[in-house]
Amino acid sequence: MAELKGFMYPRTPTGAAGILPGPPWHYSGEMLTIEFRTDPTAVAELLPAPLEPAPDDPGAVALIWADWQSCSDSLEELLDPARAQYKEVFLVVRCQYRGQTYSRAAYIWVDKDFAMARGVVQGYPKKLSEIWMTRPVSVGRAGPRLEPGGRFGATVSTWGRRIADAVFTIIGTAEQPGFVNAHPMLHSRQMPAIEMDGRDSLDELVTMRGFDAELGPVYAGDAELQIHDNPTEELDRLKPFEIIGGYYRQVGNSMAAGTTVWAAPNPMAQ
Amino acid sequence: MAELKGFMYPRTPTGAAGILPGPPWHYSGEMLTIEFRTDPTAVAELLPAPLEPAPDDPGAVALIWADWQSCSDSLEELLDPARAQYKEVFLVVRCQYRGQTYSRAAYIWVDKDFAMARGVVQGYPKKLSEIWMTRPVSVGRAGPRLEPGGRFGATVSTWGRRIADAVFTIIGTAEQPGFVNAHPMLHSRQMPAIEMDGRDSLDELVTMRGFDAELGPVYAGDAELQIHDNPTEELDRLKPFEIIGGYYRQVGNSMAAGTTVWAAPNPMAQ
Amino acid sequence: MAELKGFMYPRTPTGAAGILPGPPWHYSGEMLTIEFRTDPTAVAELLPAPLEPAPDDPGAVALIWADWQSCSDSLEELLDPARAQYKEVFLVVRCQYRGQTYSRAAYIWVDKDFAMARGVVQGYPKKLSEIWMTRPVSVGRAGPRLEPGGRFGATVSTWGRRIADAVFTIIGTAEQPGFVNAHPMLHSRQMPAIEMDGRDSLDELVTMRGFDAELGPVYAGDAELQIHDNPTEELDRLKPFEIIGGYYRQVGNSMAAGTTVWAAPNPMAQ
Amino acid sequence: MAELKGFMYPRTPTGAAGILPGPPWHYSGEMLTIEFRTDPTAVAELLPAPLEPAPDDPGAVALIWADWQSCSDSLEELLDPARAQYKEVFLVVRCQYRGQTYSRAAYIWVDKDFAMARGVVQGYPKKLSEIWMTRPVSVGRAGPRLEPGGRFGATVSTWGRRIADAVFTIIGTAEQPGFVNAHPMLHSRQMPAIEMDGRDSLDELVTMRGFDAELGPVYAGDAELQIHDNPTEELDRLKPFEIIGGYYRQVGNSMAAGTTVWAAPNPMAQ
Repeated sequence: MAELKGFMYPRTPTGAAGILPGPPWHYSGEMLTIEFRTDPTAVAELLPAPLEPAPDDPGAVALIWADWQSCSDSLEELLDPARAQYKEVFLVVRCQYRGQTYSRAAYIWVDKDFAMARGVVQGYPKKLSEIWMTRPVSVGRAGPRLEPGGRFGATVSTWGRRIADAVFTIIGTAEQPGFVNAHPMLHSRQMPAIEMDGRDSLDELVTMRGFDAELGPVYAGDAELQIHDNPTEELDRLKPFEIIGGYYRQVGNSMAAGTTVWAAPNPMAQ
Repeated sequence: MAELKGFMYPRTPTGAAGILPGPPWHYSGEMLTIEFRTDPTAVAELLPAPLEPAPDDPGAVALIWADWQSCSDSLEELLDPARAQYKEVFLVVRCQYRGQTYSRAAYIWVDKDFAMARGVVQGYPKKLSEIWMTRPVSVGRAGPRLEPGGRFGATVSTWGRRIADAVFTIIGTAEQPGFVNAHPMLHSRQMPAIEMDGRDSLDELVTMRGFDAELGPVYAGDAELQIHDNPTEELDRLKPFEIIGGYYRQVGNSMAAGTTVWAAPNPMAQ
Repeated sequence: MAELKGFMYPRTPTGAAGILPGPPWHYSGEMLTIEFRTDPTAVAELLPAPLEPAPDDPGAVALIWADWQSCSDSLEELLDPARAQYKEVFLVVRCQYRGQTYSRAAYIWVDKDFAMARGVVQGYPKKLSEIWMTRPVSVGRAGPRLEPGGRFGATVSTWGRRIADAVFTIIGTAEQPGFVNAHPMLHSRQMPAIEMDGRDSLDELVTMRGFDAELGPVYAGDAELQIHDNPTEELDRLKPFEIIGGYYRQVGNSMAAGTTVWAAPNPMAQ
Repeated sequence: MAELKGFMYPRTPTGAAGILPGPPWHYSGEMLTIEFRTDPTAVAELLPAPLEPAPDDPGAVALIWADWQSCSDSLEELLDPARAQYKEVFLVVRCQYRGQTYSRAAYIWVDKDFAMARGVVQGYPKKLSEIWMTRPVSVGRAGPRLEPGGRFGATVSTWGRRIADAVFTIIGTAEQPGFVNAHPMLHSRQMPAIEMDGRDSLDELVTMRGFDAELGPVYAGDAELQIHDNPTEELDRLKPFEIIGGYYRQVGNSMAAGTTVWAAPNPMAQ
């Protein structure tokens, strides 16, 4: 019988083998946001009751690529960068709950297990994927400069099939990188009971937002977006009717505790 | 507001995008079991209270490699085999709880996200890894035959560092592939509260076992095992004092519902 | 100044670091052959002069998936199976040269670097790819049995885009796994001069065939094949007009020296 | 019979399926150079006759990590960044040939097939590997700034085993990123005859250097380097006796034609 250590699983004698170091987590990276309008019913069908669509511009969503380094307070992951670098793509929709507007990652893909495990904690429904995003350069010809005319490509694939491709071209700068991902996150954390009878042992709505943000300028421009039919994805239900805009920004922030907004009792507990 | 479908996350309009199809799950594959004795205190320190060490042979553990195909009742994953094939390595220890002996996967590594997600449901603390295991052959020289003298290699690495290597050589056959992994599984399912204040929103002990087993003959023999120092793992705390034996077997079975043995109330639920 | 060792590159003090062990190479694995007829002009355009199309059935080609273990005479790779296991997909066409009929791998994809390097030596134009192929099983439900009704899936993707998918269903057995891949291989080995002025420093036609074949029974059946548009591939120029048949077989063989059929002088040598 | 297109293999009807676009190639990226002194005999044993060690400081070598985007003149790869981004690590030694000093990549690892194929053309003996290198950041805590105190980690692994790890800490700036990699490259291009009788069909010494260099400032500092024993590598024969220095620089350049310095006739050509 032992006192086990560690934030998530496995909890172990020293804590070194845990899949995810404990919070806070620090992030530095680059975000490419493509905002577009789709059929509002395709957004509404992503919102479990009692969440409701945002009343204004209900078809507006954002598909966001990010290329991150993240680390714990020890910063040690930065010196073993396989454990710090990851990429992600996520679809953000807006919703209302108890009169407040939230952003919500309805779909999200990452390329490392520690990021996937952090998603389980934060309620981001992360699957693994292959993700690529052009990096800006300051020398040479093999990349865009952060200036008008700079062009970026971004792709996401799973099981060897493309999910979406985007091209972004800088036109100028902007105040904000869009409006869809501008609210606190509202996520579901759900775990089927091991009895697998339709009940959930864990069923919560949680909210969180980053802190200590340090932000680069917002580069804004034109975007093209292709969402491909894919038998293991449903992103293609959100046909882009109209591109709102594209935004690139270097972002630093930190994340730690959030707040449980609502939680069901564990029906398996007596 | 929508009725979302799917067993695990994300729950979606059609269910097609879920990371894991719903149960039951069927498995066919090959298991290579290396049983060895280590310091019983290194086993005991892996057992959270109130679990207790098995009274007999408390230093006996098993490191098991498996090369699987798995699928849902639809069998559709078998025709897109990226979604069916995966490999795993797990350390099994035995423990006692309420007077009963269980097997328990203290550490486990897999190489696909759907397997990792299934681990979250089943309480297997799965991390991603690179796993390799020699396959037996029936023709040619590039592999062992399932007969005395057949030799298999097995390796597991994470972040580009080996965790363990094994070599197994068939001597003959046996009735059982060891005794460590012979009990129902007892696993913890725990989820930190989003408040990240030390409380768990989900804290359960669950048990499960396979059904509809269809088993090949057990090939038994000699085994060598090296566990490497590795800064992100703690497997090296289990020094092999003595190899008990090695076992190779082709295994088919199915898994579905288990039983919640104990569950704490969700402290976040009012 | 040193005597360097090794078959291919790098040639090094001990030879241990070479990308590819020296010959002979032994192979054991499973081959899934899909033979189909396409437009003969799509075959002819793959044959560099002076190669000519095979006179009989000139539109018949084969797309072959293989799941291999391979090793050198030391067999050591089999105990570190990351270095032994690889998968490949190749398009075989037939051609005539100096009155003899040959098989020729016009396109080929593999998933390991040692296999790619061996392709450079043998004239197989190997690119890296993600390749999957269902494995038959002898126990359990998660895989086909080697008997009528057994169904296999096979896929190949590159840069996160599918190139081709196939489904094969066993109907019975056959004498031969088709006729397209039944001849000695005729491959080009070409290397642009470092001057990059259109000349080749190396320009050869080479032939080789396996030896010490040990073959399992041929399972024959129905096949479906989809070749997808893909901007980095040209396989989609070979539209399947008619499926000839599908064949699955376990294959063991060895390969070593071949024969130079024709070689140009190195224009850079004085 | 067809006129096939493409720079390297496969040569195809349109050229789109070639593993490597034709030259010139443009590069933008980040290079981390660790210069150290080792036993001069460990350097000399890497030089095939008639190459001779550099007369000055003959034990000085450089292990260099690079994180690149590269593209052809079309720039199209930059919009499908899986085809543009790659990482590499290479060991540079110096040598003399015909009275001139050259740099030479004795070992090199990359993580993409197009980079490996370009190595075959350029005489870089590239193997595949897992490579990671910390990226500097301009916002947030999850990465070093390009200023004194900024710390970078760099790792390379193959077959799930580390080859080398480095840590670099910026102290200030410098004029040059060391002296080992400052000469034109001298590489061997060799291809065994398909007869595999010890003869080479291709045997050349080629030289090349980049052009259109656009260079960021050189950040110089302290470095730590660990080279691990590894059964499939020989880098551990170069024990670091003394670290000369570490250097980080953003680099843009282009490469195209080089010069054949020496070429043997192809013995297979009549």
